[in-house]
Amino acid sequence: MNNVLAVDIGGTHFRVGLFDEGGRRLLISEGDTSRVEGREWMLEEVRRRARDLVEKTDLPVKACGASFGGPVDFARQRVVSVHTPGWQDFALGEWMARTLGLPSRVDNDANCGALGEYRYGAGRGSDSMVYITISTGIGAGIIIGGRALRGRDNLAGELGHIPVSESGTICSCGAKGCLETFCSGSAIAERGREWAQRRPESIDRVLEISGGTPDQITARSVVLAALEGDSVARSIVEESARWLGRALLIVIRILNPDRIVLGGGVAQAGSVLLDPVRETMREFGSPSVGYSTEIVLAELENYSPLYGAAAMALDLAGQQETGSSV
Amino acid sequence: MNNVLAVDIGGTHFRVGLFDEGGRRLLISEGDTSRVEGREWMLEEVRRRARDLVEKTDLPVKACGASFGGPVDFARQRVVSVHTPGWQDFALGEWMARTLGLPSRVDNDANCGALGEYRYGAGRGSDSMVYITISTGIGAGIIIGGRALRGRDNLAGELGHIPVSESGTICSCGAKGCLETFCSGSAIAERGREWAQRRPESIDRVLEISGGTPDQITARSVVLAALEGDSVARSIVEESARWLGRALLIVIRILNPDRIVLGGGVAQAGSVLLDPVRETMREFGSPSVGYSTEIVLAELENYSPLYGAAAMALDLAGQQETGSSV
Repeated sequence: MNNVLAVDIGGTHFRVGLFDEGGRRLLISEGDTSRVEGREWMLEEVRRRARDLVEKTDLPVKACGASFGGPVDFARQRVVSVHTPGWQDFALGEWMARTLGLPSRVDNDANCGALGEYRYGAGRGSDSMVYITISTGIGAGIIIGGRALRGRDNLAGELGHIPVSESGTICSCGAKGCLETFCSGSAIAERGREWAQRRPESIDRVLEISGGTPDQITARSVVLAALEGDSVARSIVEESARWLGRALLIVIRILNPDRIVLGGGVAQAGSVLLDPVRETMREFGSPSVGYSTEIVLAELENYSPLYGAAAMALDLAGQQETGSSV
Repeated sequence: MNNVLAVDIGGTHFRVGLFDEGGRRLLISEGDTSRVEGREWMLEEVRRRARDLVEKTDLPVKACGASFGGPVDFARQRVVSVHTPGWQDFALGEWMARTLGLPSRVDNDANCGALGEYRYGAGRGSDSMVYITISTGIGAGIIIGGRALRGRDNLAGELGHIPVSESGTICSCGAKGCLETFCSGSAIAERGREWAQRRPESIDRVLEISGGTPDQITARSVVLAALEGDSVARSIVEESARWLGRALLIVIRILNPDRIVLGGGVAQAGSVLLDPVRETMREFGSPSVGYSTEIVLAELENYSPLYGAAAMALDLAGQQETGSSV
């Protein structure tokens, strides 16, 4: 029996879970990521919750996998995040192995989300799959022939930063015209705040959900209002969807994968997002060329990266057992 | 000694070559593709030249590989070209095997070009490589872990048809805003003809190279004038290069390959094309994210697909010898 621990360290939430050999979640412990406490606080939370889970079960735990919400150098098993103070060049893999006393492995959340959906979610049965997470930012995990495509610099799948326009604002990465500045949780929230400043009466449902002030508008409040049918909120989501639709065509024309799986908070808008995405893909697609790449929503919702971390841990436990090199 | 035949059937030229085990070209026979004669004429040319080459040598010939300048269903070994009358759904692989009496295999020219550069040209030593051919149209062959990425519908690498603009003319594929309508041999020739109609005196060197009339302007005449320093011709190539630069950033951010190899006639503009490509990549690239993907020019020039066809044939000959399934 190979039971494993899985950890998901994200910018908003963190999670520690215990999984069985079949990738079934047995126990979970979740919390909100503190924006003020730093790395040490987070590591202590992970350590404590992991120990709690291990103590709550009589089952042997063989390995630990972790998803980190930022760039990871997979070969060196280090976080290389430049945007998350305190985490830069941190040997998270080594820390887990030492602290938990388990063979451990870490990857970024896009790759983990892809692996989670590929093994246990909407990617099952595909050979090549692209998981696109649309939350605060946009990232993608690419699986080809069952393996994650990481790229020369561990930077494959940086879909949020493909240049899609000659104009547009400067992205958080410092570049111009990135997809993320047009279509992401941040972009949706920003459009909502712009409407609230220009014409607050047009967006009162979004303001109400947000708590009253423009500053509090988030992508989530815009998406929720859109789901209720609010017309301005819908138009904001639709504008985002048009950019996403063109990005999906780009992905399909370059990789032509079996399946594209859309995850992350914004994807929870469902058909409010997907309908204009498909319309845009028809508009910019070729009438003479038929692609059979399927576009589906993630099945594991916010837990895709955690399930992927569990899959990594199970692979690691299997390798330990058969004596393969890791 | 495994000597093999390689065939390259392109829209402008065709070639048949004899290669040795080390991928060295021993003999070659080339001709211009007729725009009026059809498939049967081309097949007869290939058959006759292949027989001539085989007769000219005492070396045993073990297999044949072919590159076709259009879509190929690799699994079924059939041409699926919709733009080349007479070729649609033609079993070219089977025809070669029957006519030449050799184990045979066919792939599209982008995949063959990629394989050629990967084995014998500018891609040597890389693990993941994208070969981009910029000629009449734009195509890409993607190699990951030594294997061609074909995609679910054999349509991976259709870089010429990524949507890069909301505006722009309708592409030959029927879609809107395709890269190919902004940056390709056709686009460059079209810009040249537009200049010639609006301000013929500004583009007299291009007209002179072309033979005098705007209708005769080709991408080649624009590139040649640009190489001589003609300012309008340079500006046309530079405009194309700006679109190409953004497309390369897209490829790098999605695949982050070890190397991108630029081939095809337009790439022969060299630094006149590459300098503005690199400038655009700096302009739209992130100052905080360093990619080490190398961008280089193809080494085998117009022969990349032929060398790739030879590599396919050598693989096939090797498999026959060891009794592996193909």
